[in-house]
Amino acid sequence: MTERLRLKKNADRRLKAGHLWLYSNEIDTDATPLKTFEPGAQAVVEASNGRAMAVAYVNPHSLICARVVSRDPEMRLDRSLLVHRFKQALGLRQRLFAKPFYRLVHGEGDLLPGLIVDRFDDVLVVQLNTLGMERMAEQVIDALDKVLSPRAIVFKNDSSGRRQEQLDRQVEVVKGELPEEVLLEENGVRFVARVLDGQKTGWFYDHRDNRAWLNKLVAGKRVLDVFSYVGGWGVQAAAHGASEVLCVDASSDALEHVAANAALNGLTDQVAIGEGDAFEAMAALKADGEQFDVVILDPPAFIKKRKDIPSGERAYSRLNREAMRLLGRDGLLMSASCSMHLAPERLVECVRGAVRHQDRHGQVIYQGHQGSDHPVHPSIPETNYLKALGVRVFRD
Amino acid sequence: MTERLRLKKNADRRLKAGHLWLYSNEIDTDATPLKTFEPGAQAVVEASNGRAMAVAYVNPHSLICARVVSRDPEMRLDRSLLVHRFKQALGLRQRLFAKPFYRLVHGEGDLLPGLIVDRFDDVLVVQLNTLGMERMAEQVIDALDKVLSPRAIVFKNDSSGRRQEQLDRQVEVVKGELPEEVLLEENGVRFVARVLDGQKTGWFYDHRDNRAWLNKLVAGKRVLDVFSYVGGWGVQAAAHGASEVLCVDASSDALEHVAANAALNGLTDQVAIGEGDAFEAMAALKADGEQFDVVILDPPAFIKKRKDIPSGERAYSRLNREAMRLLGRDGLLMSASCSMHLAPERLVECVRGAVRHQDRHGQVIYQGHQGSDHPVHPSIPETNYLKALGVRVFRD
Repeated sequence: MTERLRLKKNADRRLKAGHLWLYSNEIDTDATPLKTFEPGAQAVVEASNGRAMAVAYVNPHSLICARVVSRDPEMRLDRSLLVHRFKQALGLRQRLFAKPFYRLVHGEGDLLPGLIVDRFDDVLVVQLNTLGMERMAEQVIDALDKVLSPRAIVFKNDSSGRRQEQLDRQVEVVKGELPEEVLLEENGVRFVARVLDGQKTGWFYDHRDNRAWLNKLVAGKRVLDVFSYVGGWGVQAAAHGASEVLCVDASSDALEHVAANAALNGLTDQVAIGEGDAFEAMAALKADGEQFDVVILDPPAFIKKRKDIPSGERAYSRLNREAMRLLGRDGLLMSASCSMHLAPERLVECVRGAVRHQDRHGQVIYQGHQGSDHPVHPSIPETNYLKALGVRVFRD
Repeated sequence: MTERLRLKKNADRRLKAGHLWLYSNEIDTDATPLKTFEPGAQAVVEASNGRAMAVAYVNPHSLICARVVSRDPEMRLDRSLLVHRFKQALGLRQRLFAKPFYRLVHGEGDLLPGLIVDRFDDVLVVQLNTLGMERMAEQVIDALDKVLSPRAIVFKNDSSGRRQEQLDRQVEVVKGELPEEVLLEENGVRFVARVLDGQKTGWFYDHRDNRAWLNKLVAGKRVLDVFSYVGGWGVQAAAHGASEVLCVDASSDALEHVAANAALNGLTDQVAIGEGDAFEAMAALKADGEQFDVVILDPPAFIKKRKDIPSGERAYSRLNREAMRLLGRDGLLMSASCSMHLAPERLVECVRGAVRHQDRHGQVIYQGHQGSDHPVHPSIPETNYLKALGVRVFRD
């Protein structure tokens, strides 16, 4: 490889600080015009003085025009490096988890920009979210095969990030055969992973620790799980002794899976489902005089882009206010956000406003984040996205 | 009570938002001169238009000249309200913990500004950190007696906050008799609480969850515990299977207690002690070629006041850099800060700098905070002080 990508003067600072992204306005396009790069090809990144700094794959059509795959300019992202990185990632997960259910590769957090791999025992679900990683598809399959010899590998390539990289949707089994049901276990509770037709990879492992914390406090409680999806929170709460759980979601399909997951754990009698828009459903519950001991808010990202911050914060505020109205005398609110653009202290602020709106008192007794199988890259704040607040709410 | 404390125009905003503190420059001293208040007396806080908003106790000589004890202007902080608040606080802890070892009252976080109570089974250690709470001393004893009937109550009134409130040091047993040793259990490990001669109340319960997280990852590892104090981290690590633990502290007295706590758990062979300044000790270990699988940094607050932020951040950075040099091939750094003025993202930045300084890679796999028995008041950012980052560090 002789391709070189030259940075403008002083544009190497973020890279030196450990970041893995380069923006198109940081490239010295006189010296190395982006349009000459084959999309997805690898190149050596050099400082303005010509010093080689790293290897990155390039997408001339993306705002993030290059992502570093190694800080050693002699290295290349190939099957061998993938195997090395997968082993490193696996080593961490095996220290963390007794059972083979976790996110195995978390993109930049595992030094593999654009690649997500979730593990459901011997089924691996892969997301290739960038053009550079898309070009490595065969090597990814080979390397996963070498490290884990899975029964099946699924490509679940339907992320919004792919559209930005001008990549097509591709959802298919690329190796082996899927079992009739792909099962997983989280915090001792079993679920079906919807690896082909679900959201993202079919399961959200990132809330594992937050759910584990809540599970300890739900015995005998009446629980409302808003934006329940397939019941990750709600079915676990029921399994940990909640007397009654109502899962609310806008998708009847998701709710069917709630019912199936409840049945899988012998919890059909404890778990009810309610279809509808979250805000409307909560308003209807309030109108009916319903009260809950625990309310869980795990909404989709209300803030997808920086410009959505004000409207998104208003939506989180309104959501938390509505939830607060449904909490009983000494209630517990679990309020989550997966919006990277929502600062943790802003979620506290949404909760504060909701507490005050009801003239109640609040105690933030838990501040949760994404689980350890979703490592945050310390140089890339963008990899730190998940927040979950456990708030005790009471009247004085 | 007829005393009233009048706020300036618009100075009621923070109070409306739920905060419990009033600053002396927010008082309409023409209408209600602060110097007329008996130090520590309670008063009704009123908005500039005369509307009664809350009850607070007043200290005319303190920057925070009043702290709200109730948002109901008809209420007073008295034995009855203390009993009510203690029961509310106890209710939370009993939901959270199976055993009676925890912070029972966390000041503003439990709506009791200036009051700390740590529980060691039937021994309660109390800190009265403000003049207003000092004046309630007898009622605090009575109310604790009513709610918990403890064997002993200790006043450990030697905080730096007391000096700001012009209060004397007072360390004594104010009720009952202390047993020869006050014991506690945290994460299944036993310790002696130094309730009369230790730091703060004699134990730091706030890191319980962070230690629990680390305990899961230390089996078979060589561990360095810097600023070990009496071995909260180190002895727990040994109890959870660390092959070897070195506790470093500048206090020979603290290290004697490390040895005693190790012995109490039958871990004398696993736990070594080293006396010295943390930076010097780490430099000496490096010079001797020592390497550790896990390094724990739990320093005292390097940033006590806002003006210390720059120098404090430099100290945290230097500390994390020194620790990084002692980490082996695939190491784990637990980097904590109890400085309220250090923003969480700044601690990440210290870790990032240390990782880059050694040209290694880091993965933040844990973001911890103070435990649930140290509730954060959502309107008072000052109550959110503890950070703990778990960072995997490796060479690529």
